Amino acid sequence: MATGEAEAGTAYRPPTVDVEALRRLLDGKYRDVRDLVRADLAEHAAVLDEAETMSQTEFRERVKDLVVAMSETGQTGLGFPEEYGGGGDLGASVAAFETLAYGDLSVLVKVGVQFGLFGGAVLMLGTKRHHDAYLADVVGGRLLGCFAMTETGHGSNVQALETTATYDAATDEFVLTTPHDAARKDYIGSAAVHAHAAVVFAQLEVAGESHGVHAFVVSIRADGGLVPGVRVEDDGLKMGLNGVDNGRLWFDGVRIPRDNLLNRFADVTGDGRYESAIENPDKRFFTMLGTLVQGRVSVGGAGINAAKVALTLAVRYGVRRRQFNATSDDEEELLLDYGLHQRRLLPLLAENYALHFAQEVVSRRLHEVFSTEGDEDDKARRELESRAAGTKALGTWHATRTIQECREACGGAGYLAVNRFSALKADTDVFTTFEGDNHVLLQLVAKGLLTDYASDFEDLDQLGMVRFVAGQALETVIERTAAHQLLERIKDVLPGGDDEWDQEAGLLDSDYQLAMLRFREEHTLSGVARRLKRGIDEGLNPGEVFSRAQDHVIAAARAHVERLVLEAFVDKVATVPEGDLRSSLALLCDLYALSTIERDRAWFMEHGRLTSARSKAITREVNDNCRKIRPIAVDLVDAYGVPPALLRSPDLL
Amino acid sequence: MATGEAEAGTAYRPPTVDVEALRRLLDGKYRDVRDLVRADLAEHAAVLDEAETMSQTEFRERVKDLVVAMSETGQTGLGFPEEYGGGGDLGASVAAFETLAYGDLSVLVKVGVQFGLFGGAVLMLGTKRHHDAYLADVVGGRLLGCFAMTETGHGSNVQALETTATYDAATDEFVLTTPHDAARKDYIGSAAVHAHAAVVFAQLEVAGESHGVHAFVVSIRADGGLVPGVRVEDDGLKMGLNGVDNGRLWFDGVRIPRDNLLNRFADVTGDGRYESAIENPDKRFFTMLGTLVQGRVSVGGAGINAAKVALTLAVRYGVRRRQFNATSDDEEELLLDYGLHQRRLLPLLAENYALHFAQEVVSRRLHEVFSTEGDEDDKARRELESRAAGTKALGTWHATRTIQECREACGGAGYLAVNRFSALKADTDVFTTFEGDNHVLLQLVAKGLLTDYASDFEDLDQLGMVRFVAGQALETVIERTAAHQLLERIKDVLPGGDDEWDQEAGLLDSDYQLAMLRFREEHTLSGVARRLKRGIDEGLNPGEVFSRAQDHVIAAARAHVERLVLEAFVDKVATVPEGDLRSSLALLCDLYALSTIERDRAWFMEHGRLTSARSKAITREVNDNCRKIRPIAVDLVDAYGVPPALLRSPDLL
Repeated sequence: MATGEAEAGTAYRPPTVDVEALRRLLDGKYRDVRDLVRADLAEHAAVLDEAETMSQTEFRERVKDLVVAMSETGQTGLGFPEEYGGGGDLGASVAAFETLAYGDLSVLVKVGVQFGLFGGAVLMLGTKRHHDAYLADVVGGRLLGCFAMTETGHGSNVQALETTATYDAATDEFVLTTPHDAARKDYIGSAAVHAHAAVVFAQLEVAGESHGVHAFVVSIRADGGLVPGVRVEDDGLKMGLNGVDNGRLWFDGVRIPRDNLLNRFADVTGDGRYESAIENPDKRFFTMLGTLVQGRVSVGGAGINAAKVALTLAVRYGVRRRQFNATSDDEEELLLDYGLHQRRLLPLLAENYALHFAQEVVSRRLHEVFSTEGDEDDKARRELESRAAGTKALGTWHATRTIQECREACGGAGYLAVNRFSALKADTDVFTTFEGDNHVLLQLVAKGLLTDYASDFEDLDQLGMVRFVAGQALETVIERTAAHQLLERIKDVLPGGDDEWDQEAGLLDSDYQLAMLRFREEHTLSGVARRLKRGIDEGLNPGEVFSRAQDHVIAAARAHVERLVLEAFVDKVATVPEGDLRSSLALLCDLYALSTIERDRAWFMEHGRLTSARSKAITREVNDNCRKIRPIAVDLVDAYGVPPALLRSPDLL
Repeated sequence: MATGEAEAGTAYRPPTVDVEALRRLLDGKYRDVRDLVRADLAEHAAVLDEAETMSQTEFRERVKDLVVAMSETGQTGLGFPEEYGGGGDLGASVAAFETLAYGDLSVLVKVGVQFGLFGGAVLMLGTKRHHDAYLADVVGGRLLGCFAMTETGHGSNVQALETTATYDAATDEFVLTTPHDAARKDYIGSAAVHAHAAVVFAQLEVAGESHGVHAFVVSIRADGGLVPGVRVEDDGLKMGLNGVDNGRLWFDGVRIPRDNLLNRFADVTGDGRYESAIENPDKRFFTMLGTLVQGRVSVGGAGINAAKVALTLAVRYGVRRRQFNATSDDEEELLLDYGLHQRRLLPLLAENYALHFAQEVVSRRLHEVFSTEGDEDDKARRELESRAAGTKALGTWHATRTIQECREACGGAGYLAVNRFSALKADTDVFTTFEGDNHVLLQLVAKGLLTDYASDFEDLDQLGMVRFVAGQALETVIERTAAHQLLERIKDVLPGGDDEWDQEAGLLDSDYQLAMLRFREEHTLSGVARRLKRGIDEGLNPGEVFSRAQDHVIAAARAHVERLVLEAFVDKVATVPEGDLRSSLALLCDLYALSTIERDRAWFMEHGRLTSARSKAITREVNDNCRKIRPIAVDLVDAYGVPPALLRSPDLL
């Protein structure tokens, strides 16, 4: 257990972690909800084995039955109004969903499809007639549905999907049609077997005029078979999540009553007139989509929490497994006493804590925005959408990377299915893709920043964004970016000349760390604006300009989100009273900040914000921090509170 | 298809790639062998489906039958002497094995177990009596065996394994014993069901004296059942490779004839005397292990070739799939015309080419070393072992990273099993662990460099290495390192003062690129030596010193291997006559070199070898290179020659 500090003569005393207190802090406001889900998962832990032993067909049924059973406990309907049997608490709903990520992820995704996507769309896009007709059955698990948005030919570009819903005035119905094969709905969870209803997104056409994408409730199965005109194909075996029955849907002139248009934002009258309170079709589209932001918040949280299972296993294995003699001739060394092993795992542990607290902020904002009556605060909604997109991207990439590193850190034992990494890795893999491809989401974040979430510009696509930026004075663009205001905050913290401002502060000063991330954000974003303008000025095609600036666009968005994540962590630490708990969190917060700066230290050197010497000092500090966290690492993962029954892993624990 | 160069006014004309000629170049000397395997894989392509549709039990039988059938074509026995039905050509054997990576990887691993590990151990560690007794049946697939080295309690630290083989003079037998549960053999391919024989690695004890790890041929199954005293447990479901029946083995006083000791390097006489021509037990152990280097060469090649399947799919999908409008209002943009998409895939493509040529060098060296009679050239063997370890580590990490990036680049379609990424990802995952954990292998590389492969020091473990370095004058250590000689070569290429030598050369000059990588290698290695010495001087425990320097140790090894990889690529390009083929390869070679420097540009800046301006210029050059490769990217993956029947992927192609 020796970390060497003592031997080197320094008087470092690791903080004593009160695991229970730390767990309470992590669980936050919704501790009881999380405990309810934990208990339920532990009770049904056998599903983790069944995922391996059952056939795909059997396992799909098992997962479906489990989801229906869970709906009866109320834990899956927390986000719905109480009058329909829900809990009336969106934040609780997200907390419950996140915690499901400790268990089998097919169950989590099936819950997400039924209550988040299908039920969420009816709730958010529908009006009272839809709520009255469907929600009680949705919440009670009596009406299973699916969310038919994605098409084979259009993944993340939802606005371009091609399924049509044409109003037929003669019968007062909409006619749904899949015009060609690439316009089939694809990867639709619950479509292959279980869903009786679907919320279908289609281009609405009324009297020969197209009004863009709208959502409709469509019955797809009845009386034990498919509804006429609906064709279904099974997506077959997937890399993971094989307890979810994903499928493809084609519509061949399927007729539905006019009332089935989810008409909160737009409607078609009985005499065939299209009406909407939102005139701009782009704005209407993004407003509709924006109400579905809960899905992204949920997937980000699921990734962050699935990673906790991997970290719990790898850290605990690291203090059990010995390999090679190092400090002693007689006894082999514990893995976690190797500097490299600390380097591999502990910055990921710190990142996980950082993302946990960032996710807490997103979740709280979601709850606030959607608990407020009325739609008046457009900007708050757009900021929420941006924050949700960014946290989803970073949280799910974190999951992929962390699970992989933890698997490798558990060696051959990590490869056996019973030790959990197999399912963790396969099931979470698609998190980086669904609910929006991560790169597309980061572009969305960058677009929001460049236009300061102003509604006129929010709706522009990439091409439009480039043209918009090109049409403005550069100063105007830069000054209106959301990041520009950061400059003032940097100057407040670290006055001084351009060449030396970073040389004075202590590396462990949060203000310094934040100033570094703020500077990077402002600078990369201004850089994007400059590049876009210059490209156009040089006569390049706007698409080409975008393509060439794209890596900078992504870098700017990432810089922004990382700054938000660090702020969330710093803010959280500040709320904890002085003492060992706070010291523990401060160690993790420093490690997150410094390893984030370290990873991009080339950029900081290129932009005159790190000298070589200071850059090397940051690396030393990261290593030192890892050594300081080493003695409390097990406590830090135990505070996640993953129920032992879910860890399995006889070879690791 | 426009890369924008034309629009920007530059007169870049992409080279025309003769795909067939490039494929011949990649296939090299063993083109016919590779084509034989390609044809055979295409004929048995159904096994890719069967991996998904069969039960684990059925699929294990299917894979076993296929391997036996393949052995009859001769393609699996190319590395064995002709007198036993082999091909007498080790290089051909590696080429055949690598090409198997285009198909189902359970088949590849099952072949590796039978012919590489089991047969290879009998060939390399046994003598004529063992060859005569077993090899014809091994090569003909009539005697299936397994390789029982790894123990649950000791993965990569083979020297510490605990199974014992005690000589019983009374009966002239060895008695094999598993002393406790953690000393069971684990993850042993073919042990659960199919193997009748095992090569078992155990601590040899003769007359109360221990002589270290030796290998024995042990019959484990006969007459339809287990041999008495042998206990087997199935490892059960794994993340992937489920056509291979991995299992655990315990030995409870299992008796085998004295002749079953594989006695090429040591023997026990009838009167119970231990004898070996190699006196030093460490040297003996490493000499035995060194003969098994083919396994590492094969796994590295398998990783590199499995990645080719992923690159083929992702690049071809990138020129078929359109998403979002960018250069045109009417038509969406091809994925591969986005700068970011190029950035994500093309440096990996370049790295794959680089690793392919580096692997070709390893393979050739293997063939040369093992085709030479006698063991006289110890240093050549150690260099081969080091090169094999390093290429295996980089090649298998490349596979993990590349397959992941390619899956994400194919979006939701990449998640469906039929589109191949599922199996590619799950099956290759353990490549970074088996045949030596990659981090342990890189430590081996660093140790070899620090001691210049001198045999006295080669055998030292980490602890011994630290003590050894600490006991020398620093100058001695540094001057004897293999990397030190590089300094002279750097100075030849780039004379000039310390502050400016990197500012003169063109970024696309291979000499400049190589000088950069050589400088980094020499500098990181000297840095390790200095750190080890300083740590000891400061009174730290040697294990603690090692732990603290470990990230530098790994960085030095990586720097070394990357330099070898670039050299292999540069050397290959130099053999190609001037023309479009050479230009194509040169583009890839530049991209590999520059993206390698770019990835570590922080280090180069920290060490005064890149200015900010030049660092940024390298990033621009990488982007520019990607745009230049874009028009020929499909040709570059087509030249891999993955048979269309193996690509499946109806949704991607």
